[in-house]
Amino acid sequence: MLNYGNLTWTAVEEAAKADPKPRIILPVGSIEQHGPHLPLNTDSIIAEHVAVAVSDKLSSILFPTLSVGFSLEHTGFPGTISFTAQTFSSMIIEIVEHLYVSGFKKIIIINGHGGNRAILDSTITTIKHTHPDIQLYAFTIIDVAKERYNELRKSSQQMIGHADELETSMMLVIRPELVEMGRTLSEKPTFPPNVSLESDDLARVTYAWKTKQVTQSGIIGSPNLATREMGRILLDYVIETISRIVENG
Amino acid sequence: MLNYGNLTWTAVEEAAKADPKPRIILPVGSIEQHGPHLPLNTDSIIAEHVAVAVSDKLSSILFPTLSVGFSLEHTGFPGTISFTAQTFSSMIIEIVEHLYVSGFKKIIIINGHGGNRAILDSTITTIKHTHPDIQLYAFTIIDVAKERYNELRKSSQQMIGHADELETSMMLVIRPELVEMGRTLSEKPTFPPNVSLESDDLARVTYAWKTKQVTQSGIIGSPNLATREMGRILLDYVIETISRIVENG
Amino acid sequence: MLNYGNLTWTAVEEAAKADPKPRIILPVGSIEQHGPHLPLNTDSIIAEHVAVAVSDKLSSILFPTLSVGFSLEHTGFPGTISFTAQTFSSMIIEIVEHLYVSGFKKIIIINGHGGNRAILDSTITTIKHTHPDIQLYAFTIIDVAKERYNELRKSSQQMIGHADELETSMMLVIRPELVEMGRTLSEKPTFPPNVSLESDDLARVTYAWKTKQVTQSGIIGSPNLATREMGRILLDYVIETISRIVENG
Amino acid sequence: MLNYGNLTWTAVEEAAKADPKPRIILPVGSIEQHGPHLPLNTDSIIAEHVAVAVSDKLSSILFPTLSVGFSLEHTGFPGTISFTAQTFSSMIIEIVEHLYVSGFKKIIIINGHGGNRAILDSTITTIKHTHPDIQLYAFTIIDVAKERYNELRKSSQQMIGHADELETSMMLVIRPELVEMGRTLSEKPTFPPNVSLESDDLARVTYAWKTKQVTQSGIIGSPNLATREMGRILLDYVIETISRIVENG
Amino acid sequence: MLNYGNLTWTAVEEAAKADPKPRIILPVGSIEQHGPHLPLNTDSIIAEHVAVAVSDKLSSILFPTLSVGFSLEHTGFPGTISFTAQTFSSMIIEIVEHLYVSGFKKIIIINGHGGNRAILDSTITTIKHTHPDIQLYAFTIIDVAKERYNELRKSSQQMIGHADELETSMMLVIRPELVEMGRTLSEKPTFPPNVSLESDDLARVTYAWKTKQVTQSGIIGSPNLATREMGRILLDYVIETISRIVENG
Amino acid sequence: MLNYGNLTWTAVEEAAKADPKPRIILPVGSIEQHGPHLPLNTDSIIAEHVAVAVSDKLSSILFPTLSVGFSLEHTGFPGTISFTAQTFSSMIIEIVEHLYVSGFKKIIIINGHGGNRAILDSTITTIKHTHPDIQLYAFTIIDVAKERYNELRKSSQQMIGHADELETSMMLVIRPELVEMGRTLSEKPTFPPNVSLESDDLARVTYAWKTKQVTQSGIIGSPNLATREMGRILLDYVIETISRIVENG
Repeated sequence: MLNYGNLTWTAVEEAAKADPKPRIILPVGSIEQHGPHLPLNTDSIIAEHVAVAVSDKLSSILFPTLSVGFSLEHTGFPGTISFTAQTFSSMIIEIVEHLYVSGFKKIIIINGHGGNRAILDSTITTIKHTHPDIQLYAFTIIDVAKERYNELRKSSQQMIGHADELETSMMLVIRPELVEMGRTLSEKPTFPPNVSLESDDLARVTYAWKTKQVTQSGIIGSPNLATREMGRILLDYVIETISRIVENG
Repeated sequence: MLNYGNLTWTAVEEAAKADPKPRIILPVGSIEQHGPHLPLNTDSIIAEHVAVAVSDKLSSILFPTLSVGFSLEHTGFPGTISFTAQTFSSMIIEIVEHLYVSGFKKIIIINGHGGNRAILDSTITTIKHTHPDIQLYAFTIIDVAKERYNELRKSSQQMIGHADELETSMMLVIRPELVEMGRTLSEKPTFPPNVSLESDDLARVTYAWKTKQVTQSGIIGSPNLATREMGRILLDYVIETISRIVENG
Repeated sequence: MLNYGNLTWTAVEEAAKADPKPRIILPVGSIEQHGPHLPLNTDSIIAEHVAVAVSDKLSSILFPTLSVGFSLEHTGFPGTISFTAQTFSSMIIEIVEHLYVSGFKKIIIINGHGGNRAILDSTITTIKHTHPDIQLYAFTIIDVAKERYNELRKSSQQMIGHADELETSMMLVIRPELVEMGRTLSEKPTFPPNVSLESDDLARVTYAWKTKQVTQSGIIGSPNLATREMGRILLDYVIETISRIVENG
Repeated sequence: MLNYGNLTWTAVEEAAKADPKPRIILPVGSIEQHGPHLPLNTDSIIAEHVAVAVSDKLSSILFPTLSVGFSLEHTGFPGTISFTAQTFSSMIIEIVEHLYVSGFKKIIIINGHGGNRAILDSTITTIKHTHPDIQLYAFTIIDVAKERYNELRKSSQQMIGHADELETSMMLVIRPELVEMGRTLSEKPTFPPNVSLESDDLARVTYAWKTKQVTQSGIIGSPNLATREMGRILLDYVIETISRIVENG
Repeated sequence: MLNYGNLTWTAVEEAAKADPKPRIILPVGSIEQHGPHLPLNTDSIIAEHVAVAVSDKLSSILFPTLSVGFSLEHTGFPGTISFTAQTFSSMIIEIVEHLYVSGFKKIIIINGHGGNRAILDSTITTIKHTHPDIQLYAFTIIDVAKERYNELRKSSQQMIGHADELETSMMLVIRPELVEMGRTLSEKPTFPPNVSLESDDLARVTYAWKTKQVTQSGIIGSPNLATREMGRILLDYVIETISRIVENG
Repeated sequence: MLNYGNLTWTAVEEAAKADPKPRIILPVGSIEQHGPHLPLNTDSIIAEHVAVAVSDKLSSILFPTLSVGFSLEHTGFPGTISFTAQTFSSMIIEIVEHLYVSGFKKIIIINGHGGNRAILDSTITTIKHTHPDIQLYAFTIIDVAKERYNELRKSSQQMIGHADELETSMMLVIRPELVEMGRTLSEKPTFPPNVSLESDDLARVTYAWKTKQVTQSGIIGSPNLATREMGRILLDYVIETISRIVENG
């Protein structure tokens, strides 16, 4: 693995001439409330952890983590920072544009925050329209983990969660000193369209929500059920899966 | 059902004072290539058809269909029209803003084009941040139909399709005279990361693609297997499901 | 006449190769208050009606109507929806850009709302600067009709009107069931610079105004004098005139 | 007349407290080709001349002339400078916004360039929407002069002109040393839709055009017929008319 | 010296073909409070005066002064007008872009307002990125004068000033009738980080400030010490220095 | 020192209620060519190092480093990444806006890249205009170090440098393993206006330049003269100076 920021321009020039050219791994996270027990940068920590491991496996180049994302659904809880959709999208476009000019055409975004997914999706479509010869992947960690997580979880199955069993388990592996397990609790809000988190309807509709309106703690789910063991299994699974998909590409 | 455009301003004023206030149903489609057998406005036709039926069921107010969406992934095929992400998002924000000022706080977007989903998702989050007392739903028809479709389809199961068995079946119900069944064929492209359409990996990663690069015809799937019967079942299912979810909300 | 949305991409491809290439007719309207007697989408209905007829006469391709325009002067009356100038202009630019890429270089905008005229004018200048080989026309229906209308009208002559004898007469032809003639009345506001509607000064100055500040009903003019007969004469005249000008072009 | 730029902030403060508050006169011009015989800043010179005189008559405050406008239709001729529509509109909005905050609510724009008219029109509508208590007038000099000009002109009547009998006559009064009468000539282009300049159709349609495509010299009209006498009559008429309309307001 | 606005397009064409091509001198000022004794347009007057003299010395072409700049730090005092950073930057980019297209590649910005400096700096970097063959200089008059001013001034040395000994002295030369010496006074605010104006720390940090918060009069410095003699020396020095640097370029 | 990202939202809430409220330290760097001997993220590394130390000294809260800045002057060398001025400015505005909403009103930006300075300066002025009660400081490390550096340096004095004695010395302290001293060399370009780096004129003019046009290596200066000792002295000085200024504020 090479660290993009630690390279000289001459090293970048060489790398971009290699055959095959190395992939660029771009971790994207968020700074947003993650309940009373997890740090604001939980998504960035997880994204960076996975990105480092994937970069290692694939001998790729790791770009510095973009630590702030699109988190307007978590405002109202102190600490949450968010770019607008337009600023966040422009950031991605401009970074990829310069990588492209430097000679890199395979960019793998590893995203730790579900709320970033939509903007990443529309943004990579926009970039692809301009540069049809680019390869752009956007992995959102929860999407990669979901099937395996649903097999393992102790909490009831649900589509969506935040600061929950999954994220807390992963953090117990990566940065256990930042997890205040004593402050975990379980919140299962009913979402605006009167749909409980267990309902299959959650796959059928998107609705605008704010954690501040549906939770007290900022938690959606049951982080109290988190274990380091599950965290390790899921992180391994996510890292393996991303590496496998990208390697085949 | 009331047709928003056909109301006078005095009728809008009355409607906005009703208890409960009527919901606004906003159909969103696209103008983009749909293979050699379906019209450019397939997504708009389906979205409008569903929106009319839902408006009827829920005694809601139907807003005029936004017929152009975000379709950059289909450029290269003549006829495709697309707004940029920013213009499309601004359109939604500005329409909802004026509806809000007129007194409407429950807005149901019914979207016929998968490529619009991401922008709608981030846009409704942005609006909710400004107006926390608004209720915004975004239904993408393929998401609503998926589970039921997977039970019924004759084509092999896949995450994604375009101008396929699903859309063609629905069009055979709504506008059969616009479907050229004789020109249907089956295309199953392999997507950039070497993932076949049958792979579960399709749920784990988003990648930038262009139909022009992976298909000859613009079709992804097997529209040749479409039937009017399936179209009817799925449209009924979609209309029922959206109405049920919204009604509970 | 061909309906753009109803074409397949292969049909668009063929059309764009024809000699001469068909023109694209793009109707643009508004959703805004039109007094207590006319529907919000009056401008869209009239623009679409004219556009259909012109498309027929000229064997052109009819694009779907853009039903929302720039209507900030009518806010304050419930129901009015407006894009910002920038969003509305971007919509036009992006649609025309994709039509141009698809091979169409003659675009005829048929506009039903006076308030859109200014943005259309500056926008087509911007597009022409980018693509000097494009032909872009913007017809605003009131401008086309004016001379003939002034010969026929029973109301006193005036520069500007809204939901007036002209629009009401046309609607009595196109959608009589949407006209509540019993609610018509006559309002002749004095505009901010103390200029009555009969004054020639109305051709010499533009001033910012809001219907909400100068009318009770939203009407400017005398829709009570409208007749179906005048509507038919004027619609015929508008359709003939646009067709003649475009055909010579 | 007071010159806005020459005031101290304490003088502005006093002026904004006067009863009635003085009006602000804002001249807007352009830097664009004006044929081989008139300078690039013809529109700015004429607008400023009229604005000074109107400010004097009405004891108003004269704002510095905005010398660059929206002139994309004249690019291709060296020397033409143009803002984009968005930049030009933002300039007007931001200037008026600060004038409003300083206490001024009557703003009179005196515009020397026909190509600016459309943007000024939509921009003042936008400002009025934000600040309903503002009074905004936009005078375009050709519109004010037209009727009188048509009575006096030696050239054949036409809707539109550029660097023509009207502008040249006015310049012969204001800055005769900048007029190269020996280089005047007469050009009467046929416009894209095959409409001659004498046709009434010019009032019925707007079409995108570039002077570079329809003229050799950049002239549209007959500046060779210009006289200082007509310039004086028309300038007096324009100044009187604007002053009269504003004074009544 | 040629005055850009006074040229015909044919004269611009010739000038752009000359060898060497003439430079374009672009004066930029501001409309903002300058204490109780100096006019709002002080910066524009000084910038234009210097620009005229430099244009004369270098046989350059003088562009019309941009009289409004970026002055948000002076809002709160009546009369201050400011563009946003984005509008101001776009104005510069668009003007230079059209000059470039007309054939001019050496552009000298002469800026009279310290608050414009930052935007000019980032803007010329942006333009240079697009057009590497352009030569763009941005002189801010206070920067050019500083060393010489510090030798001559009677006021205590300081990094920053506004409506101070320097500007007042220059205005006593250029437009003495606009200087109300009887209203001058001396204000030496302590800036937010408790740094006096004499401190060397002023070169080490930038902090956001508003004159309204740190002064009563809008003055920062000692304009009461201004003399016409110093104004003349400094203006001569500035004009000589700019001309010398540009001439060598 | 607290690490912003590592806090829970409840900890942020408490911190924002403390008296006095802690300051937020925001490090800003760049990813750009730094010659053949220093890594792309040199500016980010130095900014973060200083920010950590200042946060420690002042018991402040350290925000995650923004690792990409505005570096268009270094494009052409592979590896350089740059946001546009608008995106970079929006990022700062949006982060500060959310910090402000969370209760923090003292924000200290520590910037490692000279090319970011201009945008930071205009951006904090914009923010201050919106929130007059905020305290915003922007330190650019070269500005803080300059006087002391000029006393110590072995290279000839110059205004500007890049990947030079200063930056290389600092990197020898912070990340010596990333410095390839064997590849250092000395380049002293003459800048576009024929001004050598030793000239005092460098303080009198800003001109647009690109390192690609004036250097071979990307170096401006003499990094071969760098020493770890000087790096330590200067870093200590910078950290002390920033802390002292902020503490007094």
